[in-house]
Amino acid sequence: MSIITLTTDFGTQDWFVGTMKGVILGIAPKVRLVDITHEIPAGDLRAGAFALAAACRFFPAGTIHVAVVDPGVGSERAAIAVRTTRAIFVGPDNGVLSWALRDGTIKAIRRLENRKFFLPAVSNTFHGRDIFAPVAAHLGRGANFSSLGPVVNNYVRLPWPEIRRCGNLVEGEVVYIDRFGNAITNLPAGSFPARAAATPIVCHGPKPIGTVAACYQAVASGQAVAVWGSSGYLEIAVNGGSAARKLGLKIGNPITVELPGRGVR
Amino acid sequence: MSIITLTTDFGTQDWFVGTMKGVILGIAPKVRLVDITHEIPAGDLRAGAFALAAACRFFPAGTIHVAVVDPGVGSERAAIAVRTTRAIFVGPDNGVLSWALRDGTIKAIRRLENRKFFLPAVSNTFHGRDIFAPVAAHLGRGANFSSLGPVVNNYVRLPWPEIRRCGNLVEGEVVYIDRFGNAITNLPAGSFPARAAATPIVCHGPKPIGTVAACYQAVASGQAVAVWGSSGYLEIAVNGGSAARKLGLKIGNPITVELPGRGVR
Amino acid sequence: MSIITLTTDFGTQDWFVGTMKGVILGIAPKVRLVDITHEIPAGDLRAGAFALAAACRFFPAGTIHVAVVDPGVGSERAAIAVRTTRAIFVGPDNGVLSWALRDGTIKAIRRLENRKFFLPAVSNTFHGRDIFAPVAAHLGRGANFSSLGPVVNNYVRLPWPEIRRCGNLVEGEVVYIDRFGNAITNLPAGSFPARAAATPIVCHGPKPIGTVAACYQAVASGQAVAVWGSSGYLEIAVNGGSAARKLGLKIGNPITVELPGRGVR
Repeated sequence: MSIITLTTDFGTQDWFVGTMKGVILGIAPKVRLVDITHEIPAGDLRAGAFALAAACRFFPAGTIHVAVVDPGVGSERAAIAVRTTRAIFVGPDNGVLSWALRDGTIKAIRRLENRKFFLPAVSNTFHGRDIFAPVAAHLGRGANFSSLGPVVNNYVRLPWPEIRRCGNLVEGEVVYIDRFGNAITNLPAGSFPARAAATPIVCHGPKPIGTVAACYQAVASGQAVAVWGSSGYLEIAVNGGSAARKLGLKIGNPITVELPGRGVR
Repeated sequence: MSIITLTTDFGTQDWFVGTMKGVILGIAPKVRLVDITHEIPAGDLRAGAFALAAACRFFPAGTIHVAVVDPGVGSERAAIAVRTTRAIFVGPDNGVLSWALRDGTIKAIRRLENRKFFLPAVSNTFHGRDIFAPVAAHLGRGANFSSLGPVVNNYVRLPWPEIRRCGNLVEGEVVYIDRFGNAITNLPAGSFPARAAATPIVCHGPKPIGTVAACYQAVASGQAVAVWGSSGYLEIAVNGGSAARKLGLKIGNPITVELPGRGVR
Repeated sequence: MSIITLTTDFGTQDWFVGTMKGVILGIAPKVRLVDITHEIPAGDLRAGAFALAAACRFFPAGTIHVAVVDPGVGSERAAIAVRTTRAIFVGPDNGVLSWALRDGTIKAIRRLENRKFFLPAVSNTFHGRDIFAPVAAHLGRGANFSSLGPVVNNYVRLPWPEIRRCGNLVEGEVVYIDRFGNAITNLPAGSFPARAAATPIVCHGPKPIGTVAACYQAVASGQAVAVWGSSGYLEIAVNGGSAARKLGLKIGNPITVELPGRGVR
């Protein structure tokens, strides 16, 4: 009983996602379907890639993840499936899968060209329904990965924002803003020495946020706070409010961490 | 293991849809539940009818489709179930089922009057929970269609907007605008000769969109384009943008197709 | 095959809810998952408590209800599970479970402290994923309720707004406004004599709404109407419109019912 997850920018106001599920259940009646989210901003590959990467680690081994953020649907971009040691990822080869692939070990990549796994009629505007859903469903009911199409040796990678270090300063940036207005950065918890938890964080250049706290309630209601977020990255939040709104944080804004020890500034 | 789909205008912010699912699983613990959409604008029968019609073709035979867009709940409108060669449709008899029924062959219609398939207490404001969900669940676990209530010979039909032809001009109209701002018309792909793909499309009277293209990317980013959409109808889109916003398109706006050959204009 | 329901304020735009489901299915692959709603306003315990209470009555016995509206996540608030004669409730001990517990008979309460039912790494900001989802999943696959942690004898209760009586006047208040703009009060149908259905309702002090009607269509389109709503409480609606917008109704606004008989006013 495979699990198939869906991550798209289709929204939920139309019939698009429901239709993909109809296609899947017609082919593989026993798979479990889980929505990651369908509210990725239209065409936002980075938001889709981040959501998929953040969620997929929490699914059991063997899960099939379908991600369809596909502004180039119907054009020349390829469709691929990627098998890792833990999961299978299915989607357009435009980078939306790439951040989820940063963790694991890739075992095989195939370009989706075997039309026997597609719907009989393939539209030029809805490959989620006509290609990605049926391919995932066939995989879910046991189709051979290697029968999907020719071997591919590479895939499109979205650049992961670089972390810059200078003396005892570490500079990252905001990569995602969630529904609560928390600003998630590209700075992973594991990359800091334990003592870094005692250092000031500076955002927007000169504005200090304070030391990394254990939880949102470490500061008074309405105050900004930095925490190691649940996705494993440094996160700027406001207790009981929206950091994005209160601090004017946007994706791409630099977030600087000053490590303790030497006094550069 | 039947599939029951749900199409409603209940939104997802309250407990309404979850409650319907609780009722269904209490009666038929093994059915598969699929949401088509719950974001039909409140009381918008045409949007509900279009979404259901667009989605239901992609579900396996035997699927039970429940549609509850029901501005007349509690009043005198009837509740019906319709069995076609492919599926069963359950909902108020107010037209919301009617566009899905345009395709198939109707085998039987029953008015929902057998209260043993309802919840014990039927409210006047939530027949989705008290009548439609339990009726669908009973059907899903094998209840006899003919036990639902008396035979009905007709059902309420929403008028499907007429297609007008005049010389080599074909005039339809916008019937649905999706979350991307694509304007879906009532002009089906099958109704045009192949050569029509080479004809100019005119929207809003005098504004030409251009020939029907293979995909959104056939035009530059931000430009309008006409395509045969994934629902099978002519669709006006903007590559990477919203046709509804950019062109000011609204439901009911006329879309004219000029067939090639003679030069009327 | 247990049912696990989810009620949260996580929204659906991020990967939070999908991730909880991944965790649950990794532990209990056969449970049925049902979303009540994820659009409780951020941190709004009363809205979460009302939604859960309104929905849970319609699920079969044995259902496990997880509610995560948790503004104090990571702080000192306890996490609990409550077993009643009909269901199990899992969530933070902050009141969000309390209105659902007003109906049933509580059999046992445990504080969630047995870390073998948690994810191996527990974050300070996402107990929905790290504690509540895995605990519910373990219960769903048969874990012993008494192994969850120590016995607790009480739980945090949100005050249910008092109903005031004075002569033949009964005063309650608006406790929830749904997506249609219907204003649901704390006045239960069962608490009025049948003849009360013939009495005038006054809202916002002096503004009369009229007698309790059988359904929304009892009044002309656009007119206000009072009905016994599907949740079992008196509800102020506008036929085909929003009572909240049209009458300016807000949560906490008093709604007065005048019982027939004596003429106090």
